[in-house]
Amino acid sequence: MDTVNESVARIEAIIGRKVKRDISQMTEWAKGNLARAAEAIMNMPNAHVGIVTGFYIQHAEPPSPETDGLGGMAHLAAGLANAGIPVTVITDAPCAKAVWAVVEALPAPVNLEVVSTTESSVLRLRQYMETGDRPITHLIAIERVSPGSDGKPHREHGWDMSRETAPLHLLFSDPAAKRRWYTIGMGDGGNEIGMGSLPKEIIESGIPNGEVIAATTPVDSLIVAGVSNWGAYGLLAAMACTKPALRDALLRYFNRDMDHRFLSAAVEAGQAVDDSRVDSPGRPQMSVDSIPWEQHAALLEEISAVVASHAR
Amino acid sequence: MDTVNESVARIEAIIGRKVKRDISQMTEWAKGNLARAAEAIMNMPNAHVGIVTGFYIQHAEPPSPETDGLGGMAHLAAGLANAGIPVTVITDAPCAKAVWAVVEALPAPVNLEVVSTTESSVLRLRQYMETGDRPITHLIAIERVSPGSDGKPHREHGWDMSRETAPLHLLFSDPAAKRRWYTIGMGDGGNEIGMGSLPKEIIESGIPNGEVIAATTPVDSLIVAGVSNWGAYGLLAAMACTKPALRDALLRYFNRDMDHRFLSAAVEAGQAVDDSRVDSPGRPQMSVDSIPWEQHAALLEEISAVVASHAR
Repeated sequence: MDTVNESVARIEAIIGRKVKRDISQMTEWAKGNLARAAEAIMNMPNAHVGIVTGFYIQHAEPPSPETDGLGGMAHLAAGLANAGIPVTVITDAPCAKAVWAVVEALPAPVNLEVVSTTESSVLRLRQYMETGDRPITHLIAIERVSPGSDGKPHREHGWDMSRETAPLHLLFSDPAAKRRWYTIGMGDGGNEIGMGSLPKEIIESGIPNGEVIAATTPVDSLIVAGVSNWGAYGLLAAMACTKPALRDALLRYFNRDMDHRFLSAAVEAGQAVDDSRVDSPGRPQMSVDSIPWEQHAALLEEISAVVASHAR
Repeated sequence: MDTVNESVARIEAIIGRKVKRDISQMTEWAKGNLARAAEAIMNMPNAHVGIVTGFYIQHAEPPSPETDGLGGMAHLAAGLANAGIPVTVITDAPCAKAVWAVVEALPAPVNLEVVSTTESSVLRLRQYMETGDRPITHLIAIERVSPGSDGKPHREHGWDMSRETAPLHLLFSDPAAKRRWYTIGMGDGGNEIGMGSLPKEIIESGIPNGEVIAATTPVDSLIVAGVSNWGAYGLLAAMACTKPALRDALLRYFNRDMDHRFLSAAVEAGQAVDDSRVDSPGRPQMSVDSIPWEQHAALLEEISAVVASHAR
């Protein structure tokens, strides 16, 4: 039987696999963060986990959030809620329909908060999160864009996303905030919330257009993955390794059928899009980061097998 | 030159035209409400108008809010904001993307508030609306479903919309609320917020499935229209007749080009749907209540001509 550390390291290696870009410098730097993030949540009594997701693609047909991020949110939300840890999913108006559709597909209800695209709307939500009955203790961003060096959020080729993006990064790093939660960021491209933790030379040289798009929002634990969703798969599995008493509850819905259900809800009800390229718009389809659903399901099962072998 | 009363009565007659159903009993009962609603807003110093809209059609391809309501919201929001009266548009997560897309297409910014589908989310918004810097003074519902006699919102053929509908009617009629605003409802079918003002015998006998779907939420002024959007066109025009000093400002964007822009945003970015029938699902298209856009533009211009002849 593996030690917890060995199992989590194996999971970290699986989710950090190269897809198209070489992200090895980033994953190398981030090694150990998956374990730290899992421990941070599992060791906190009365945790309440916020999950921020939704990456809006203006140049898709129709304009819509991309599929990546939504499935990761769903697995984390389903597992945590089933383990008795309350979850609040957070997004903005442009992504709200798709995120709601996926939340609707969850096996148990979780909270949903939707802000408009204004700063005041985000700051009002933050105040609520700080002062509600059960304040947020951990805040996770999955595939959520962060401002770059010019203070504006950008797509990977440089498009300014300000109009269609709420400044939800202010929940993670606003200097004026009395931030009261542990922050976790998951990304695969370099422009997502959390990537601001990377040393400047790695992030700017490691990604195309890095000088413009590289994220400036740091987090306490950065999880770099080949596909952002995989970071969420990995965190769920790492938590299950870290806390055996919650393992079965956390992983009850971590299977291919549920993954298919979540992606179907995102695509069919939410019109979530994928495979957006400069020369051809993204469209609603059963893929994530241009990888067909089946391959994500296989990776999910590979991660699941690591937890199972750890448990034996 | 017409008196104000004559002009508003002419506008009321235009918007109350029969489309498919015979709504004459309802329009007859509601006569005079258009003038009262216009006066209520125009005579209030420091008004702040809330507009609730979004009618989600689960059985459409894709599931999406219908086009009706969105254009009416847009014209009211554009005109009021341009006349210096702040506007807050309110919807829920399932309708948020389409409503946001239309708000984005407005010539000037207005506030947008999005609730999830839970009662607690609606009650939290109400508290904010009551206590914010500039509390809401008037709240308008355009084509927004109300609970029927069983306490649940229904589509016209009886489908229970509870899962995909926030109880925004609680902003209009919750008995526990210290309601601090004047309420206006616009509808065309009998199941919308505001129709609860009608005498039971009119609403239940006047519409198919009335015993189940008839709205129970009343308002201070009920505007019954052939198409709900027309109610908003009518209110904007009636306000312009009522307050000549604001006429040009209110009507600056009340034209066919802008109407086309609003509907395009709803359909293209928001995937708003229309022409949903029991035997064939609604789809995104440039029509409202199964009437092609061009006919709505013609009606808008007819209303506009009444105001112009009044002004001469």
